[in-house]
Amino acid sequence: MNTIKTYIKNNKERFLNELIDLLKIPSISADSAYKKEVLNTADFVLKSLKNAGCEKVELCETPGYPIIYGEKIIDKSLPTVLVYGHYDVQPADPIDLWTSPPFEPVIKETAIHPEGAIFARGACDDKGQMYMHVKALEYMTSTGNLPCNVKFMIEGEEEVGSESLAWFVPRNTEKLANDVILISDTGMIANNIPSITTGLRGLSYVEVEVTGPNRDLHSGLYGGAVANPINILTKMIASLHDENNHITIPNFYDNVEELSVDERAEMAKAPFSLENYKKALDIDAVYGEKGYSTNERNSIRPTLDVNGIWGGYTGEGAKTVIASKAYAKISMRLVPNQDWKEITALFKNHFESIAPKSVKVVVKPHHGGQGYVTPIDNIAYKAASKAYETTFGKTPIPQRSGGSIPIVALFEQELKSKTILMGFGLNSDAIHSPNEHFGVWNYLKGIETIPYFYQYFTEMSSEK
Amino acid sequence: MNTIKTYIKNNKERFLNELIDLLKIPSISADSAYKKEVLNTADFVLKSLKNAGCEKVELCETPGYPIIYGEKIIDKSLPTVLVYGHYDVQPADPIDLWTSPPFEPVIKETAIHPEGAIFARGACDDKGQMYMHVKALEYMTSTGNLPCNVKFMIEGEEEVGSESLAWFVPRNTEKLANDVILISDTGMIANNIPSITTGLRGLSYVEVEVTGPNRDLHSGLYGGAVANPINILTKMIASLHDENNHITIPNFYDNVEELSVDERAEMAKAPFSLENYKKALDIDAVYGEKGYSTNERNSIRPTLDVNGIWGGYTGEGAKTVIASKAYAKISMRLVPNQDWKEITALFKNHFESIAPKSVKVVVKPHHGGQGYVTPIDNIAYKAASKAYETTFGKTPIPQRSGGSIPIVALFEQELKSKTILMGFGLNSDAIHSPNEHFGVWNYLKGIETIPYFYQYFTEMSSEK
Repeated sequence: MNTIKTYIKNNKERFLNELIDLLKIPSISADSAYKKEVLNTADFVLKSLKNAGCEKVELCETPGYPIIYGEKIIDKSLPTVLVYGHYDVQPADPIDLWTSPPFEPVIKETAIHPEGAIFARGACDDKGQMYMHVKALEYMTSTGNLPCNVKFMIEGEEEVGSESLAWFVPRNTEKLANDVILISDTGMIANNIPSITTGLRGLSYVEVEVTGPNRDLHSGLYGGAVANPINILTKMIASLHDENNHITIPNFYDNVEELSVDERAEMAKAPFSLENYKKALDIDAVYGEKGYSTNERNSIRPTLDVNGIWGGYTGEGAKTVIASKAYAKISMRLVPNQDWKEITALFKNHFESIAPKSVKVVVKPHHGGQGYVTPIDNIAYKAASKAYETTFGKTPIPQRSGGSIPIVALFEQELKSKTILMGFGLNSDAIHSPNEHFGVWNYLKGIETIPYFYQYFTEMSSEK
Repeated sequence: MNTIKTYIKNNKERFLNELIDLLKIPSISADSAYKKEVLNTADFVLKSLKNAGCEKVELCETPGYPIIYGEKIIDKSLPTVLVYGHYDVQPADPIDLWTSPPFEPVIKETAIHPEGAIFARGACDDKGQMYMHVKALEYMTSTGNLPCNVKFMIEGEEEVGSESLAWFVPRNTEKLANDVILISDTGMIANNIPSITTGLRGLSYVEVEVTGPNRDLHSGLYGGAVANPINILTKMIASLHDENNHITIPNFYDNVEELSVDERAEMAKAPFSLENYKKALDIDAVYGEKGYSTNERNSIRPTLDVNGIWGGYTGEGAKTVIASKAYAKISMRLVPNQDWKEITALFKNHFESIAPKSVKVVVKPHHGGQGYVTPIDNIAYKAASKAYETTFGKTPIPQRSGGSIPIVALFEQELKSKTILMGFGLNSDAIHSPNEHFGVWNYLKGIETIPYFYQYFTEMSSEK
């Protein structure tokens, strides 16, 4: 299968240009102002799958944005790989921190990516990583190297909670039947340290609203005598962590999996420099739950972060006002066994219970998803590991990620199949941040590695 | 002097229309986008003073917005009243809570104002109350009833800290020489309970910025391991009050005047219904410093309120981000003897000292001013009291206000004269809030009452 290297070499410019065209469409699912662009992106993906060799492609309507489905079935007795990805992206703000416009992709060299990286919102998460699969399929179909059946399911609401996918999957279990689900929406440790993500955190995302007086008030005439909803909100949020940075919501930790000493020792072996970490973020100290290392804090431990807060006068100058309302968006990352709906309910009950009588509090759940741990003793993991070995020349390290792909747990439940997370991005790729990018080397390495997974997975399945 | 009633009756429509024209100009000093309108308002005031009978009017340039000066000196041996007011207004946001546009004044009836109230930003604070003095002057000069000398000093930066006035006053002490300073920029208890404000709180206004990582981060990949500046900011702000709602800044209360039991008992006699107060604000409970009543909390006690807070994603939907920065605007109302510059320094030192090592904190002072207590045993207070008695038929109640007119303490220091605060607005007039208004009855009652103050003050001065 050495032809893949040649194929990539001959088609590199086209592969990059096609991805750049895809990145130009601002498919921001969180903001309804971009509805048309999200739909245009769905069409783009549909055509790409058709061009890459899918024999059947469908734009599947849902209560929200459509899901793009594609398949190429070569022999029903062979295994089937289901590729999942998403065509929507995070909002681009704060826009002014981007060094080039988020939807005008450019390739620039960086210290970590001397061969250049594509800068654009969605470059890594997930358009770039999703499109690797489309191009790997193109290679396999056009050169007669597709060893098994393949299905694609690409959604448009991953960044806002995958609600339509959760609606779609249980209604289409037969169509989506597969032997393994393959996703590239995670990262690896470094370009010379390949890794496979074996755990994902779950998520519960809520919005809170605190209402004090029925109108904005003059802070001189009322200050000190009336509950200020911003002061109250800060007090309520602050109380959600104790002095050791444990979360104080009752029963929050009830189902948290506690790793053994051995497991933690194994985790601690992953290459990590605290100095480089702090330097990359320009911080003097890390901060987190007492008793856990940085890598533990952002992978095996649950968290509670305010993602946005607002209230009162935020313009130029000064206004002496007591606002009527204050708001925050709060998300909790969860670990396997924590049920996101249960956690959302615990949060809501607790947050409402700590509100003083002088304000009214509304907690509005946004969305959520379960955490997930993938086994490393099945053939999907073994095939993926061997694929990395072939193209990277190194055995990949299994690694828990702090991120969430809420839908993975649902796939297991509804489709009864395991997911394998072959990510080719890096943590430094700034996903969800200004100046998101994806290494050109990583993009092409992904395209190179994926066909080997198909080959090894098919071979190992037949040996069972 | 019964002619004043007749004069008002004959000129009521014109008095209202002139004020409406003044209210149409959006003179928002906090927002530089309105610079032209602020300057136009200054011109409007200049012309009004000329038309009302000032023999000399001047637009006095300053480092900021101009100060309008006017005078009519009839006899140097007679006393001189210096009228102070301001032509700038607060920002109008949140705009969507206004029932009519803030700069398109309309007269509407309300439960408290059955004769109608003018709804517009600045209607009460301070264009309406300032303009009462212009119209009272017009009456006195045009009917030969001006009993003493009068000077006007109307500024355009009261809502942003009066910095140019603080620059102007010490440079013009001779021009501004006077026997009493007269200000209408406060309120009274109710239309049937006249009151005179005898105390004002001081103010210290700061803006804080908390910086965590050098860019916005993905809350999954970094959540739990890096200080989230919004979480930290809420913790820092929450810690500024203890469980009894005392402010925790060291030495904050050092110079706070503690009232005697008798003084507090006297204050408690002012008519006040907690039930009506809560009902008017639609709150189930009041909230404030333990050990003090509502009226004490908002007048004789210092406070710390967040006037605005922002950070992270505040748009539609959800974004799983850890923001790089979080901000808040915080103001402290101070009581007499607390020095605002000292308090600002105490705040800055304390706030910086409580920041964890994992963030950087910047505290930027905005502006401030000293608190003030006016004596009630001087002839200015007595003359004002008698004027209210004449037109309201009731002796006014002396009352401490929670608001601030920072410049009053400066006047005493630089001009060596006392200030008398004859306010005709009501707390329910929603100053600094959406739907600010000023009762038509109150506007006209102010115009009626002011000339009596001139008369009694002149008479009492000659009796000295």
